[in-house]
Amino acid sequence: MISSTATVTFDSLDLDCGVTLAPVDCAYETYGTLNSEKSNGILVAHAFSGDAHAAGDGGWWGNMIGPGKGFDTDQYFVICANVLGGCRGTTGPGSINPATNGPWGMTFPVITISDMVRLQKKLIDHLGIARLLAVAGGSMGGMQALEWAVSYPDQVLAALPIATTHRHSAQQIAFNEVGRQAIMADPDWQGGNYYDRRPPARGLAVARMVGHITYMSDESMREKFGRRLRNSDEFEVESYLRYRGYKFVDRFDANSYIYITRAMDIYDLTQHGSLPSLFENIDTRFLVISFTSDWLYPSYQSLEIVSALRSRNCDVAYVNLQSAYGHDAFLVEVKEQTELVTGFLKSTAREASVGRK
Amino acid sequence: MISSTATVTFDSLDLDCGVTLAPVDCAYETYGTLNSEKSNGILVAHAFSGDAHAAGDGGWWGNMIGPGKGFDTDQYFVICANVLGGCRGTTGPGSINPATNGPWGMTFPVITISDMVRLQKKLIDHLGIARLLAVAGGSMGGMQALEWAVSYPDQVLAALPIATTHRHSAQQIAFNEVGRQAIMADPDWQGGNYYDRRPPARGLAVARMVGHITYMSDESMREKFGRRLRNSDEFEVESYLRYRGYKFVDRFDANSYIYITRAMDIYDLTQHGSLPSLFENIDTRFLVISFTSDWLYPSYQSLEIVSALRSRNCDVAYVNLQSAYGHDAFLVEVKEQTELVTGFLKSTAREASVGRK
Repeated sequence: MISSTATVTFDSLDLDCGVTLAPVDCAYETYGTLNSEKSNGILVAHAFSGDAHAAGDGGWWGNMIGPGKGFDTDQYFVICANVLGGCRGTTGPGSINPATNGPWGMTFPVITISDMVRLQKKLIDHLGIARLLAVAGGSMGGMQALEWAVSYPDQVLAALPIATTHRHSAQQIAFNEVGRQAIMADPDWQGGNYYDRRPPARGLAVARMVGHITYMSDESMREKFGRRLRNSDEFEVESYLRYRGYKFVDRFDANSYIYITRAMDIYDLTQHGSLPSLFENIDTRFLVISFTSDWLYPSYQSLEIVSALRSRNCDVAYVNLQSAYGHDAFLVEVKEQTELVTGFLKSTAREASVGRK
Repeated sequence: MISSTATVTFDSLDLDCGVTLAPVDCAYETYGTLNSEKSNGILVAHAFSGDAHAAGDGGWWGNMIGPGKGFDTDQYFVICANVLGGCRGTTGPGSINPATNGPWGMTFPVITISDMVRLQKKLIDHLGIARLLAVAGGSMGGMQALEWAVSYPDQVLAALPIATTHRHSAQQIAFNEVGRQAIMADPDWQGGNYYDRRPPARGLAVARMVGHITYMSDESMREKFGRRLRNSDEFEVESYLRYRGYKFVDRFDANSYIYITRAMDIYDLTQHGSLPSLFENIDTRFLVISFTSDWLYPSYQSLEIVSALRSRNCDVAYVNLQSAYGHDAFLVEVKEQTELVTGFLKSTAREASVGRK
């Protein structure tokens, strides 16, 4: 499956903070073919450090998107866009501010999950899709799936929020804050004005190392590394973390790290009302998935969403998948997720076609 | 209770790495009175960032040590020493290397938990105590309690390893490594040669922030901070972490952080044999305590110790205390710990006096 990233530029985007960004680039990829009724579109939303390249070689959800896979590109038209605030083609703090002709840096306006979704909505409109079959995503991608269902309930038939929450806990905020502090503690950060110099590589690498620990489970780390030594005075887990940390620097912008984690932290679906009240009169079907060993987005957070949906008689299936992979499980547990997603999308498509008759 | 830190200087200390440190300072405090038989001495070992000041105003275990408390200073003579490698009076990387007349920095030899215990043994000998009634400690202090029981089984009647493990898991090593990397990423660290300049405050603060998250539980953070804001764009948990992080810099040395966390990571009681084999022929009595919400030193790690002790018919009591405080619980759950420790020490003292008859 060959796909390349396309970019569409929109005149403007109104943000929750009151600022209007103009213009706004949105980088995206698509896989599969949009049918003539334009009814088979599925938006896949990436997690914090992902990008538009969801499928094919090196795609972050390559094991879930493709011919015959969970998001079967023989049947569905799958879309993935780099989020607002990102650094992989969509407008973010590393983009040029037309007012100054220099990079935005930390003068980039505060962005939210709903701003990200508002930009995705423009993309979907641009693609001529009036109604998505589904929006799916794990972690921050799951927040976007939730936000889609609540903001555009008539434009999304099904939502698949995976390993996610409707708002961060103090612990989740704390881990993100440590990452931000690590970046800002790096003298190379320079208040975010480093685009013509060397980036805050050491700070960003440390931030990523913290992240990696939280994505794995105690058990999966024990199995993967144990106490094995790489050489006489270094544990394998240490060199792994450093390697992953510094590798991350090559593909990610430190200011995007700050802006996007901030968007996750301030995300709180209940700021517009109680969770049950938000799900009132929503016809969107839900498949909620969590993973037993995910301690970063613990299952109880998925259950909060499920309970609220059930209290309003929404159509919701919930599975707490047995897994040792921690938060990473949504990227790894292919077999179980494939079965769940395949069945759920099939029944959604069937209901949609019945509904249209 | 008034106590001040004393320092004793020993001619030398042989280290596991083969180096002999000479001379070696050991800072310690004592509380209560050593009886004429010198049979009521209890060594309390501090955790990673603690020091000799265990009791009294600001003492790290002030709620557990004192007249009528768990470690009752009306009955027992309680000793606490700053660990080898520390920065609060005992020789560590910030001390002067007599060979160069400058601070050791990163030329300080690698130290181990058993080196720490060997120095404590010298202190106990210096105090004229042939046999300790007990050695107690939480976290890294618990490692020392275990090490005492295995290295000097005839000189310690009872061991109280609390919220600890006989060897770090990959996850525990990983969190320590992130702290070390944060310090070493700070340009002010200068390869450890910062003693005549400003210390790597930002790196050390970030390291401490990570630590603080791991000491608390998801639940205790939710209860303490939730999503409360400190001001319009800052969560309370964020300012708390930053405050605690930078406050730590005033009292702790970054190189000590590196050396002591390293000692914890390389600690592996089983390098001398299987855990059950190490407990063979040990008469030391054990009280092992863990806490249900401690995810940094999970209860299963205490259970590994307990199972090995039971397999050798050692005298062991184990309690997995219900607590929401996470790893911090050993410093916070006073009531339950006091009851357990009081009863355990009382029966130990009784058996000791019977044994002497």
